[in-house]
This record gives sequence, C-alpha cells and structure tokens, in this order.
Amino acid sequence: MRARVFVTLKPSVFDPQGTTVAEALHTLGYTTVTGVRQGKYFELEIDTPSNDEARRIAGEVADRLLANPVIESYRIEIAAEAGAGA
Amino acid sequence: MRARVFVTLKPSVFDPQGTTVAEALHTLGYTTVTGVRQGKYFELEIDTPSNDEARRIAGEVADRLLANPVIESYRIEIAAEAGAGA
Repeated sequence: MRARVFVTLKPSVFDPQGTTVAEALHTLGYTTVTGVRQGKYFELEIDTPSNDEARRIAGEVADRLLANPVIESYRIEIAAEAGAGA
Repeated sequence: MRARVFVTLKPSVFDPQGTTVAEALHTLGYTTVTGVRQGKYFELEIDTPSNDEARRIAGEVADRLLANPVIESYRIEIAAEAGAGA
C-alpha cells in the first residue's frame, strides 16, 4: 500500500515560506494567486495488504515523526500501489 | 479555487531526506514501511471561478517557481474552496 501524508502548518500559524512564495508570484505577475501555504509531502510504501492497517501505521508515523502536532496538522490518503506519474 | 501542487523528486533522483526518514522509522520499529519519498506541498488560493484557468495558472506557477523541472516532477489537484480541516 502507498500512503500519502500531507503535513501543513495549522491555519492559525504564520507561514513565512508561503507568504514569500505568494510575494514572488505577485512579482512575476500572478496577481490572481491570493494566498499560498507551504507544507511537506511524504509517500510511504507500507508492506501490508490492509487499507486500515496502512492508515493506522501512517497515522502513528505522522504523529511520532513526520508532523509536529503543536503547530502542524496532517492528512492521510491511502492509495493502491501505483506509479507516481506526471 | 484552491489548487494543490505536489512536488516530488523524479523517481530516478536519489532522495536522502526520504531515506533518512525511512531509517528513523525502522529504528522506531516500523519495519513494514519499506520506502519513503519526501516532497513539497503547496496550497494556492486562486481568484478565478474557472477550474481550467486555475489549473493553467497552477501549472505555470509550478513550472516557473515551485518545481525544478530538471530533478522534480509535480502533480496538480483542483478543489473547490473548502476548509483544510484535520
């Protein structure tokens, strides 16, 4: 199973990286981009046939290692094994 | 519109961050996690009512600023405006 974990700063936490990206985009002329938030993205290959087990492991891993629960929140998606593509 | 951009290293590019995370997980006892790839995640708020226009802008922005096309690939998802949640 492949688990995708998205870690983002909580909405109440100031995101200077995202703000900098937004300012750079305005400088480049992309004035319709009104806001940017930056986060981290992890793809985990988990050796289990069970969706639920993969989700449980990904959740534990996110809590213990990938995200700082004080300032970050995370979201998990489980996908059947597939080429990353694009 | 909210556009989500996922930037990952191309599969042929060595990902030392991901390898380090995988090793840390093995040390913590998560031996079923066989591989980790780390990437970047961006949420763009784009002031346009059109899905296609949002996708076009997000693609341009990813090409010009968010991803390094030599070593990185990206994927775009368009979502109607909604709370980030979780």
